[in-house]
Amino acid sequence: MKLSKKTLHERLDHIYDVIIVGGGAGGLSAAIYLQRYQLSCLVVEKGRGRSFWMQDMRNYLGLPPTTPGRDLLQQGTDHALSLGADSLRGFVETVSDEGDTFAVRVKVGKTDSSYPVFRAKYVIAASGIIDHLPHLDPMQNVYDYAGYNLHVCMICDGHEIADTRCGLFVNSEAAINTAFVLNWFTPYITVFTHGLCDVGAEMRHKLKEHGYPLVELPIQKFLGHHHEMSGVELVDGSTVPLETGLVAMGSHYHNEYLQGIDLEKNGKNLVTDSMCRTSHPRIFALGDLKDGLNQVSIAVADGTLAATAIWRDIRRASPARRWQQNIQTITEPIGVVS
Amino acid sequence: MKLSKKTLHERLDHIYDVIIVGGGAGGLSAAIYLQRYQLSCLVVEKGRGRSFWMQDMRNYLGLPPTTPGRDLLQQGTDHALSLGADSLRGFVETVSDEGDTFAVRVKVGKTDSSYPVFRAKYVIAASGIIDHLPHLDPMQNVYDYAGYNLHVCMICDGHEIADTRCGLFVNSEAAINTAFVLNWFTPYITVFTHGLCDVGAEMRHKLKEHGYPLVELPIQKFLGHHHEMSGVELVDGSTVPLETGLVAMGSHYHNEYLQGIDLEKNGKNLVTDSMCRTSHPRIFALGDLKDGLNQVSIAVADGTLAATAIWRDIRRASPARRWQQNIQTITEPIGVVS
Repeated sequence: MKLSKKTLHERLDHIYDVIIVGGGAGGLSAAIYLQRYQLSCLVVEKGRGRSFWMQDMRNYLGLPPTTPGRDLLQQGTDHALSLGADSLRGFVETVSDEGDTFAVRVKVGKTDSSYPVFRAKYVIAASGIIDHLPHLDPMQNVYDYAGYNLHVCMICDGHEIADTRCGLFVNSEAAINTAFVLNWFTPYITVFTHGLCDVGAEMRHKLKEHGYPLVELPIQKFLGHHHEMSGVELVDGSTVPLETGLVAMGSHYHNEYLQGIDLEKNGKNLVTDSMCRTSHPRIFALGDLKDGLNQVSIAVADGTLAATAIWRDIRRASPARRWQQNIQTITEPIGVVS
Repeated sequence: MKLSKKTLHERLDHIYDVIIVGGGAGGLSAAIYLQRYQLSCLVVEKGRGRSFWMQDMRNYLGLPPTTPGRDLLQQGTDHALSLGADSLRGFVETVSDEGDTFAVRVKVGKTDSSYPVFRAKYVIAASGIIDHLPHLDPMQNVYDYAGYNLHVCMICDGHEIADTRCGLFVNSEAAINTAFVLNWFTPYITVFTHGLCDVGAEMRHKLKEHGYPLVELPIQKFLGHHHEMSGVELVDGSTVPLETGLVAMGSHYHNEYLQGIDLEKNGKNLVTDSMCRTSHPRIFALGDLKDGLNQVSIAVADGTLAATAIWRDIRRASPARRWQQNIQTITEPIGVVS
């Protein structure tokens, strides 16, 4: 059920099989599988994750390519709740390993907050990442276009960028290399550093050789109408016309709540095995938090894998259910067999 | 576009980037990704694969749990076609490695068949498996219930089997071990061998100890109404009431067309790397044909992975697109930048 401040106390004595941090594509897929495996889970969702911002989810099989990410999340939440999952809007602050269980402390409510602690045998980290965006004043100017034609994922939206005049927005010299992948889709690339990094002679030469202008002046604002970005105005008042944009400024990883637990990492990504198990046997990581492609389809499959691995663990540790005569006789009669 | 006998000759001179054998969940997901990566593909679908038979796809994120598999396939086919993929109804007979390309011979039409040969740089094997079912006369009696409450996948449908009186239908002693996983969901299990295998003393003892009856007499027919199986009638006229069934008789792997190519296998499954690449660098395998869970979500992610790996290969082997002055000037004007 959907827990609220009023009802969450009903679950404080309960030990869930799994607490899932994050109700995005991976977390919801895990919840659906776990509940179908007859296991109990709580999904804690802080809201407004990466898939929430997707205006059109154009590459997920089974949904029309105009489906907004929030529709997927709503459908998945309803699906998980219908199977008996619990869900709670809140922010997971810490996860503590108590041996057989984890204690998961959640901040509920932005004002007049409460801090309930829930317990589970397993934790699934499915809290994802959020892309860094250029910081402009006001930020609303960025939000007006981000997720529309100012993209954050080339794999998701390279198709929409194809053969357009595209701005590539970076905050490091290394990120400029994105241009030399993006040029699969379009050669009409202008690189904007927003004044955030130095660019060495070698990279300047490479850009020049490819014909990709480098703009180092800070951006004043994005130009456009009705969520359709049409260019950039720089601090000196000059403008650069664009048809699309790609932001490649790195991401914030929502995994601070795990910092008390020593988990193996590869850069910022959690290292997992083929079933999404981290280096802690009872902590799994899905989707964008782990190595691999940051795609909805991958997160959904990761949820399937993690839930299945947890089911196998718990099942194998449980006594076999026998068909005892006295149980047999109290089962519902089978009705007419013709 | 949808190719037909009349139009397929238009593609006989074309070298596709990828030919995808099988238009199920994995193949369609691959097609969507490939086309979005600006690559060309042909999906050859023989029809009536495993997902076509699913009456309710209960565990795939984003779709209501009452969605039939054929709706997913239709949506995915429309989606791939809208992105410019080609599709053809036909049966792939052979794939021959010609060095830089594969020649894929397809049988089109059940009567008055033609045998066109298409070419591609890469092949994705996404033709899946089909579950063996008990052979009864008439088979229609089996088809009346298979995919309804006579299930073929415990991971998919264990939830529907929970605490019901379930028939487990096997064709080997090894498959009887399925009972000791199925009992996570229900202990009210009756095992039917249909007379297809011998059962040793140890297994008989184990079944007896768990209280699971073993029925070795061949089955005459399934009983029930309106796709709701309610039991089994044996050849001696006796009946066994049931509420659900699970068939665990192995599967037929649709991969005969690959038999001319030496690919590494693990049992019947093709061995693949983390991007679904087989031991042949230009052949990928998805979903049920490879090791791992036989789930729609996994196949969809596999399609994402294989398409991405192929895109990376082709992109890295292609010359970089430069923004040349003369190209720049002939691009469409950007319109008003305010």
